[in-house]
Amino acid sequence: MSEHAMLDRIQTPADLKKLSAAEIKTLCAEIRDTLIETVSCNGGHLSSNLGVVELTVALHLIFDAPRDQIVWDVGHQCYVHKLLTGRAEQFHTLRTEGGVSGFPRPAESEYDTFIVGHSSTAVSAANGLAKAKKLTGDKGYVIAVMGDGAMTGGIAYEGLSNAGRSEDRLIVILNDNRMSINRNVGFVARHLAILRSRPRYVRVKNGFGAFVSHIPLVGKPLYSLLLEIKTKLKNALYKNSPIFEDMGFYYLGPVNGHSLSDLTRALRAAKNIERPVLLHVETVKGKGYGFAEQSPDTYHGVSGFDRETGETPSGGDSFSSVFGDTLCQLASEDRHICAITAAMQNGTGLGSFARRFPDRFFDVGIAEQHAVTFASGLSCNGMLPVFAVYSTFLQRSYDQILNDTAILGQHIVLAIDRAGIVPDDGETHQGIFDVSFLHTIPGVALYAPACYDELRIHLKQALYDEKGIAAVRYPRGGEGMVPQGYVTDYKPYTLFRAQGANLLLITYGRIFFNALAAVQKLACEGIRISILKLNRVLPLEEDSLRLAMEYSGVVFMEEGSRAGGMGEMLGSRLMESAYRGRYWSYAIEEFVPVCKTDAGLRREGLDAHGMEEAIRRALEDLSGQKEELWRATGSV
Amino acid sequence: MSEHAMLDRIQTPADLKKLSAAEIKTLCAEIRDTLIETVSCNGGHLSSNLGVVELTVALHLIFDAPRDQIVWDVGHQCYVHKLLTGRAEQFHTLRTEGGVSGFPRPAESEYDTFIVGHSSTAVSAANGLAKAKKLTGDKGYVIAVMGDGAMTGGIAYEGLSNAGRSEDRLIVILNDNRMSINRNVGFVARHLAILRSRPRYVRVKNGFGAFVSHIPLVGKPLYSLLLEIKTKLKNALYKNSPIFEDMGFYYLGPVNGHSLSDLTRALRAAKNIERPVLLHVETVKGKGYGFAEQSPDTYHGVSGFDRETGETPSGGDSFSSVFGDTLCQLASEDRHICAITAAMQNGTGLGSFARRFPDRFFDVGIAEQHAVTFASGLSCNGMLPVFAVYSTFLQRSYDQILNDTAILGQHIVLAIDRAGIVPDDGETHQGIFDVSFLHTIPGVALYAPACYDELRIHLKQALYDEKGIAAVRYPRGGEGMVPQGYVTDYKPYTLFRAQGANLLLITYGRIFFNALAAVQKLACEGIRISILKLNRVLPLEEDSLRLAMEYSGVVFMEEGSRAGGMGEMLGSRLMESAYRGRYWSYAIEEFVPVCKTDAGLRREGLDAHGMEEAIRRALEDLSGQKEELWRATGSV
Repeated sequence: MSEHAMLDRIQTPADLKKLSAAEIKTLCAEIRDTLIETVSCNGGHLSSNLGVVELTVALHLIFDAPRDQIVWDVGHQCYVHKLLTGRAEQFHTLRTEGGVSGFPRPAESEYDTFIVGHSSTAVSAANGLAKAKKLTGDKGYVIAVMGDGAMTGGIAYEGLSNAGRSEDRLIVILNDNRMSINRNVGFVARHLAILRSRPRYVRVKNGFGAFVSHIPLVGKPLYSLLLEIKTKLKNALYKNSPIFEDMGFYYLGPVNGHSLSDLTRALRAAKNIERPVLLHVETVKGKGYGFAEQSPDTYHGVSGFDRETGETPSGGDSFSSVFGDTLCQLASEDRHICAITAAMQNGTGLGSFARRFPDRFFDVGIAEQHAVTFASGLSCNGMLPVFAVYSTFLQRSYDQILNDTAILGQHIVLAIDRAGIVPDDGETHQGIFDVSFLHTIPGVALYAPACYDELRIHLKQALYDEKGIAAVRYPRGGEGMVPQGYVTDYKPYTLFRAQGANLLLITYGRIFFNALAAVQKLACEGIRISILKLNRVLPLEEDSLRLAMEYSGVVFMEEGSRAGGMGEMLGSRLMESAYRGRYWSYAIEEFVPVCKTDAGLRREGLDAHGMEEAIRRALEDLSGQKEELWRATGSV
Repeated sequence: MSEHAMLDRIQTPADLKKLSAAEIKTLCAEIRDTLIETVSCNGGHLSSNLGVVELTVALHLIFDAPRDQIVWDVGHQCYVHKLLTGRAEQFHTLRTEGGVSGFPRPAESEYDTFIVGHSSTAVSAANGLAKAKKLTGDKGYVIAVMGDGAMTGGIAYEGLSNAGRSEDRLIVILNDNRMSINRNVGFVARHLAILRSRPRYVRVKNGFGAFVSHIPLVGKPLYSLLLEIKTKLKNALYKNSPIFEDMGFYYLGPVNGHSLSDLTRALRAAKNIERPVLLHVETVKGKGYGFAEQSPDTYHGVSGFDRETGETPSGGDSFSSVFGDTLCQLASEDRHICAITAAMQNGTGLGSFARRFPDRFFDVGIAEQHAVTFASGLSCNGMLPVFAVYSTFLQRSYDQILNDTAILGQHIVLAIDRAGIVPDDGETHQGIFDVSFLHTIPGVALYAPACYDELRIHLKQALYDEKGIAAVRYPRGGEGMVPQGYVTDYKPYTLFRAQGANLLLITYGRIFFNALAAVQKLACEGIRISILKLNRVLPLEEDSLRLAMEYSGVVFMEEGSRAGGMGEMLGSRLMESAYRGRYWSYAIEEFVPVCKTDAGLRREGLDAHGMEEAIRRALEDLSGQKEELWRATGSV
């Protein structure tokens, strides 16, 4: 990093303000170089960060962070911000355990205001932040930077609609990099296209408004007068009043997001308008790295690449691709099958489905709420909708799953990708709550395949054997080491009985193979443990409970939240059944920070070694009270 | 009902089509009379239904239900629809157990398509319904009727934005009765005001477009040409292109929602436009009942009233009013306290707060997602936000509570009204999931006051003793019979120890008083039972667990969902602690249909009698295995 002389000089945004225009230009180049270098090694979000280099620099030039607060939506476009706020030196640790987070992280720096791990919430948060400033007499600004893709989420609309009513020092920057255009998502795509077609903001300013922006510190009465004239001029130039003005925002734009002078001029103007401003900035995803400019999607979220050739690691199979292929196969045989994604077509493996069945493929934008209710409507009239969604994002559909689907008894399939420990992104992207929150909803069936073959089987079961909400959850990435000859059946559970075992290990999903490894290792020492693998986790099969009660002890292992999870349910059922053996439940108890999958499982004691240890502890406990053990006689 | 000669003739919408214009006018009057009569007795939603009499009649005249499907948003404006679709005779049973539901109910009639118990989801559902029709070659229409208040919810925007992209036979009727104006909620209020200020649709049509609408069955090419000319004419007349057109809808309106001829003409026109149409209809809430026209909010959701005088039962105290008064008191002492509601100012008891502290009161519209993230932003900058919300509607904030608040460790207070069994509205309004879904979120504190005094105490504790998310849940209506001299303390739990008892009853919230009654009754027979009342339900106090283990048996009673609830958690913890006593857990296992509160509690076995029975059963079980009982020795 020694060649980054300019970047090395920036410890805080104050240092930035000392640089000349030429030096800032050099700085931007150094930032881009650092972004490409680090993300090519560590993986992460490249395109969006390359797109906001000048915007971020301009923000820190015009505003005074941390007093002025910037909220990034989604947070993964914060890398440049991190480089400018004291984290350049550590930036090579990006997205590693204990390193610089790939999202804003208030615990990491006072310059980070809010995480926004899930899209579209920045304006709501900024509304609260700005309102609090107003109420406490703090004169600072709050700036929300939101991509046009984030505009497709309902809470963005709720936030804008509410924030526009205020008179707070709030600036919303709409970072328009045409994400919504690519996906052709309804209103946003259309409306921004209209706005974009207009002359750019600065060109208008050259006519009249430039006068205003060149005297930013002019007295308020004069300024207001000028503003009024300018508004009238603008309204005369632009026949269409954009939605943002109906929402109460003063709309400025569009501005060239790669021209520092245009940006700083617009930001200065925005700063002087004493009500919420929406500044429309046009940026190019991947700006400054040819490969990324050409295929911004490839480098949107990427797990490393070759900087010189732009080559990304070839995909290979994954649970996502197996899901996509299987669904294509099934859809070619059944014209009722539809696929829905909330802006995650490629991530969920639906690329090929989208090409082969365009009539039955729906990318609804970042609108998980709509996705579920839409699916319920499809189902109501006889279709077989499959909503493929990351576990963590499905949280946003909780009410729609419950009210618009479960109560009506509609049959929809939830293909829950990225379930369990998810690498690299930290707390907001872990898929550890789906089992718990789906469990609270009456009538949900939930399958947990441990390998590709089971995913194929369970997806089919979810589609055709279930009546209400049927979910299939599977992890990010590829399957683990599946033992040769391993065969699963279509039953809700599989018992791997070890002769003479008095301890039963119950688990589900991919960590079953860790359980198998642990048990096999113990078997070499002559320790015999049975395993009960839940294939269909919900509803809990009564038989499996009876089965468990034949053992002196039960160890339960769950790659998901302990609170409200299967472990609690099973434990309670055993207790209520007057089970007289012992019960140990292991699951995830806290939010899980950035980690690799293996490290995360190890940390939570859900790897083979952790399971082995848990079993040994259980056996010790059991032998310590051997005399006292007696089999349950209570009825189930 | 014998004086309703016209209404008596309507068994299906087909009967409606046989009536003359004069007869329909009589019918509308009879419908209004029936609405006022029934709601004055049974309670329910009056104003909105009086407002849609002509609209509903027009819909059933122009469309062919059930092939054409109508989705009501929110569903409580479906009474007229029910009267016209075979349920007039049973209508006097409205909102009673086993009677006609106050919401659409597919199980009740093939004319009911979707419930929409929670606002703003109709367009998403209709989008799915219409898409399925298209895919299966069904030529029917889908009509979503959405109030302008519902437009303030984010999923409405997601739905419109997606539905507008389709080419399906979808008509969205925006029933503009100025709900959003009353609340001054951002974009909707502003944008609709602009639209309303225009000449009404029919007047324009009288110039040119009338020609089009008078030949609805004209050939498609000619029609398209006329449509194009009309569109141009319209665009020339209206300078502002409304957002709905950016969303892809053909916008028609505004139309007088009380003129049958205007409505039918507009609906016929909408029917002939081969892409999604948004028809803007202006109606008057409470139309035809003077008291309701004057105070539509009073008769929005009302629990009976005097038809002649318009008098509604005087309020008296309720948990909501006690909450509101207490918060006012606290806010007068602490200027950091803010109150937030999602369009439920009066329902949540915040009327007086809104008047006294307008700067710190925020009605965000039907935007529960925004409400929570906004609160988190307020908290981040030092304020003390309290979001008062019905339990069932809080479901929509699950992701924002988890991601935007809990992960960041922000301190916000959730005042959860209508927790537990909620009378009259049925499945979609029961407050039975809050404990379960909040339990899944790490770090949530949850208080459950049983009476007003405890609400006062716990609200203060939630505000000042907790650090992260602090929730206080309380039921709809008033407190039960609080025994004289009953005093609660500030501790997380209270033990009511009965000398010599070997059974412990654990519970929380208002049903504690049922527990007390049951135990007191048993005491008269010499049966001694201890009670452990959880004041702070979450997190579970370790001490309370140790305490429970001193008993031979534990009965747990919960006014909430069994799945993921406290009963499962406690049962599992007892099991893991090697508790050797017995455990019985009672909670709510299924969706709860329309019932009164008492009947609902009785049905679920959570009234005093049900508890008494449960205790007797438990004691029998215990005595049956007396010989085998032994106290637990395991550590907690």
